[in-house]
Amino acid sequence: MIKQSYAILGSGAVGGLYGAMLARAGHDVHFLLHSDYEHVRRHGWNIESHWGDFDLPTVNAHASIDTVPACDVTLVGLKTVNNHLLPSLLAKPTSQGGVALILQNGLGVERDVAELLGDQRVFGGCCFLCSNKVGPGHIRHIDYGRIVFGPYQNSPETLSKAEQICGEMTAAGIEVQTSDDLNMVRWRKLMWNIPFNGLSVALDASTDKLIGNETSVQLIRDIITEVHRAAIACGASIDSTWIEKTIDHTRTMKPYDSSMRLDYLAGRTMELQRILKTPIDTANAAGVAMPKVEMLYQMLSFMESARQADDHSEA
Amino acid sequence: MIKQSYAILGSGAVGGLYGAMLARAGHDVHFLLHSDYEHVRRHGWNIESHWGDFDLPTVNAHASIDTVPACDVTLVGLKTVNNHLLPSLLAKPTSQGGVALILQNGLGVERDVAELLGDQRVFGGCCFLCSNKVGPGHIRHIDYGRIVFGPYQNSPETLSKAEQICGEMTAAGIEVQTSDDLNMVRWRKLMWNIPFNGLSVALDASTDKLIGNETSVQLIRDIITEVHRAAIACGASIDSTWIEKTIDHTRTMKPYDSSMRLDYLAGRTMELQRILKTPIDTANAAGVAMPKVEMLYQMLSFMESARQADDHSEA
Repeated sequence: MIKQSYAILGSGAVGGLYGAMLARAGHDVHFLLHSDYEHVRRHGWNIESHWGDFDLPTVNAHASIDTVPACDVTLVGLKTVNNHLLPSLLAKPTSQGGVALILQNGLGVERDVAELLGDQRVFGGCCFLCSNKVGPGHIRHIDYGRIVFGPYQNSPETLSKAEQICGEMTAAGIEVQTSDDLNMVRWRKLMWNIPFNGLSVALDASTDKLIGNETSVQLIRDIITEVHRAAIACGASIDSTWIEKTIDHTRTMKPYDSSMRLDYLAGRTMELQRILKTPIDTANAAGVAMPKVEMLYQMLSFMESARQADDHSEA
Repeated sequence: MIKQSYAILGSGAVGGLYGAMLARAGHDVHFLLHSDYEHVRRHGWNIESHWGDFDLPTVNAHASIDTVPACDVTLVGLKTVNNHLLPSLLAKPTSQGGVALILQNGLGVERDVAELLGDQRVFGGCCFLCSNKVGPGHIRHIDYGRIVFGPYQNSPETLSKAEQICGEMTAAGIEVQTSDDLNMVRWRKLMWNIPFNGLSVALDASTDKLIGNETSVQLIRDIITEVHRAAIACGASIDSTWIEKTIDHTRTMKPYDSSMRLDYLAGRTMELQRILKTPIDTANAAGVAMPKVEMLYQMLSFMESARQADDHSEA
């Protein structure tokens, strides 16, 4: 079978890592880059990974979507705060019937793309990994790395397509599995993302600090319990043992700054809408309130506004 | 009628202001001081107040409770984090049957003293004021100032005693009124203290910043609503219009750093137990949960622990 071609939108900690691994395995991979474009075009990728370090000196680097060819699969790894760009970014690489695999955080992210491509051409997944972009063209992947993904709409065709992508990723050295319950996969990831992304900013602390204090662990447990209750109400059948498992897994994780904390510290817009607000609204629509999650969202929104006000007053 | 004598325990923004006003009016007032002792003994008090500035050059200043005489009334204005000192501090000034008026923040503060003096000798009150100690012997009282107080246990004797103290304070220029429903007074003050003390630390913002942002105002409203619901369950009949009134009053307040924020910024222990934990426990015992208040307490407890851990690692 001919190896599929891949376009990578959002070539950062997620898209850069997986795209580079697919390229190393011989796939035709096209990376859309912004600030790193010149560096990656000249020097390629430098991947530090606990799965094995490697350099990828020659890369199909693109500074504009106009030069990206139509591809079989488009991996969407850009921050959800940039999703207003998706219509213009997806048109070219999906122009020959290719599919999109959304590896973004949060909830409701597939729907954004399904409106553009149709339900049958959209796949979504969650990445359970600790990976950061630490310099131009330089990814540091320190822990975990598994992708769990599935079709936005299950059908024999979409499930078969998912298996094809999964097989290629596995062959490329990526730890990956498919699921026919994307809703469940998304909510289970939210059980980590909401408390740990949110509290790492609100309490100015990395995961090891949050997990090392009795009071914050209780707060984390309260928040995960709220998310779990919402998940059940939204049709995601997640066993309640995942509440403690999520905490225990984080205990064994290397000290890590969540993506939201890195965004906040770097002055970038945080992914509050898709990681917090959409889940709150979705749970409310299902009749479940998440008061502590809502408070987290309110506090983070205030912090973001306060910072913007500071920026303006300094300007 | 002979003017009553007063002992002031906790001669700061509250005790210093009211004590100095009583001394100016001719009462025998004894101030227990720590860091400010030498300064106040030599130079007295310098009071900047929106009720009128004044100096009080000669003051009965005490470095130890041992030199404080028995007084008719002991004003307790010290921080609740020091309440373990109350048995040793109250013994001397109340040794001739004097009463205690507890002007501390939070809930359950009269009970601590009633266990020592008996229910009939304890009064409690809330101070609605913006006042800070800005230097040695230097109080800056920028806004409000009213005391509302009443007996811990209502009886003809305690209500009469309250009127006597109220009359003397009024004559001294203090805005003051009595209440026969101390529980209601305390819960109404908590409707301000819990959101504004708590969030000013958790969100690192003064009252004007908190009140100037739509999202934080909604969070403040949510928290006040929780406290109001708890108050009702705990027998404090507070009209629900006080929820918006509390917010509106704060809008007209001058920019102000809450006492908890000043404590946090200065590295002092915050009054988390009496302002947050006791109300949460009291509400829980009455069958009412306050999830956002609980989250505030959890976050502030984490912040305090994290700071202590930092202090130790620097030592």
